[in-house]
Amino acid sequence: MRQTAERLRLTGKRISVVPTMGYLHEGHLSLIRIAKKKSDVTITTLFVNPTQFGPNEDFSHYPRSFERDLSLAHSAGTDYLFAPEASQMYPTGYSTYVNVEGVADVLEGKSRPGHFRGVATVVTKLLNLTKPHVAVFGQKDAQQVAVIRRLVRDLNIDVEVLVVPIVREPDGLAMSSRNTYLNAEQRRQATVLYQALVLAEQRIKQGVRECSKIIDEMKSLITANSSGQIDYISIADNNSLQELAALQLRQSVLVSLAVKFGTTRLIDNIVLLV
Amino acid sequence: MRQTAERLRLTGKRISVVPTMGYLHEGHLSLIRIAKKKSDVTITTLFVNPTQFGPNEDFSHYPRSFERDLSLAHSAGTDYLFAPEASQMYPTGYSTYVNVEGVADVLEGKSRPGHFRGVATVVTKLLNLTKPHVAVFGQKDAQQVAVIRRLVRDLNIDVEVLVVPIVREPDGLAMSSRNTYLNAEQRRQATVLYQALVLAEQRIKQGVRECSKIIDEMKSLITANSSGQIDYISIADNNSLQELAALQLRQSVLVSLAVKFGTTRLIDNIVLLV
Repeated sequence: MRQTAERLRLTGKRISVVPTMGYLHEGHLSLIRIAKKKSDVTITTLFVNPTQFGPNEDFSHYPRSFERDLSLAHSAGTDYLFAPEASQMYPTGYSTYVNVEGVADVLEGKSRPGHFRGVATVVTKLLNLTKPHVAVFGQKDAQQVAVIRRLVRDLNIDVEVLVVPIVREPDGLAMSSRNTYLNAEQRRQATVLYQALVLAEQRIKQGVRECSKIIDEMKSLITANSSGQIDYISIADNNSLQELAALQLRQSVLVSLAVKFGTTRLIDNIVLLV
Repeated sequence: MRQTAERLRLTGKRISVVPTMGYLHEGHLSLIRIAKKKSDVTITTLFVNPTQFGPNEDFSHYPRSFERDLSLAHSAGTDYLFAPEASQMYPTGYSTYVNVEGVADVLEGKSRPGHFRGVATVVTKLLNLTKPHVAVFGQKDAQQVAVIRRLVRDLNIDVEVLVVPIVREPDGLAMSSRNTYLNAEQRRQATVLYQALVLAEQRIKQGVRECSKIIDEMKSLITANSSGQIDYISIADNNSLQELAALQLRQSVLVSLAVKFGTTRLIDNIVLLV
């Protein structure tokens, strides 16, 4: 992969990369289509990265479908699909990890210790292997985006980070490979996540500035309309990801949440300008 | 620097980099000369990296002489001298660190907690900034070499790591910017470090296989002939850096030591094939 990427760079090609864990859905395909528009050659990486899963998380049964992914990625316009084995990415004796402090320690990082260490490490490796001019990520993983922006800036990695809006099902549910875990009733109830985010948007537009008040309303909505167990609901500064008590005019705000339906943990978010 | 390096790569130039903390001596110059032979364009970096110094170490008074370094690096054949400010390398909000576990936790890493985190982080940054085909390091910092080899392999960095033998003063003392701290008497006594390494070499050639026996002899030699305070003397496997109890035939062994003369801490080493 690295030799191919180097050869492409030397012939003046502009390379884009779309890092994924596979089981591609319309969200991923939108990333690939945009990547294709922004470059001469698009590489999609497909790697279920063990180091970003906790010991009690769903690594072993994370959904996989290589042939389907290959076909979907190709149809969306990818030129290369890079799908290494875990034993190639982390051979015996492997011992180097990239830590992004601060922005990685809140929200998902608090609920999933070690998750962003795994993300930062594998993204650094994938960027070194694919040598892209532009790397494309989905806004769905809002904190991942913040961590990667920080990582790229701090380690002086020569790549443009491009972030693509969330793609949603017709009823508002954010596309996710993990939606496949939901049973019919959970799937129906899961629409409440986006409804709670829209509620927050309405309240902020109506002039509510006290975050705890908005979060309480979101909680009530979710609890009243689903059996989902709320992991967190957060209103934070969109750059630092530090939680806010009160909103200020013209502040860019990330409203995000994580809710469990049975053993399936879903996340969603919305970015708002107050 | 990164734009210059990218431009050089695109025109097909082979780039070498020699990372240094400045206050150049004949050891550094030998690195630059070899780098020049191995490439079309040689970049010497000069950066006293704050993150690899402990709170009670000599960062603030580490010797600096920019004009002299510039002239020496130029005369040895460097094409570029890259000398960023600490505030450029670690701007406000900086929070990403590279950790190499295992090989970084023993010897110098044990005596200087955080040291190799700083080294691994700054080397990753400097490689991203200078985009070299070959990076040249001195064997003087034997463990640093092991850490960087691990880092480059683990993070899939596309660079050849080239290691150059220690350059010594006529009386055997390894060249080091820190030798400038020594007073005349300490400077005279400091030759005992290399004498102790030569003693270890002799004993191993004579067939001694018990490491503790060799180390005891080295300690006696140093204590009898100097006022140096021994931090550690180690006989370790040259790849894993794990300490050995007994030597095995055809094993590559790193004999290394750290000794303090007053507040000045000197290190030296020798690699032997048993």
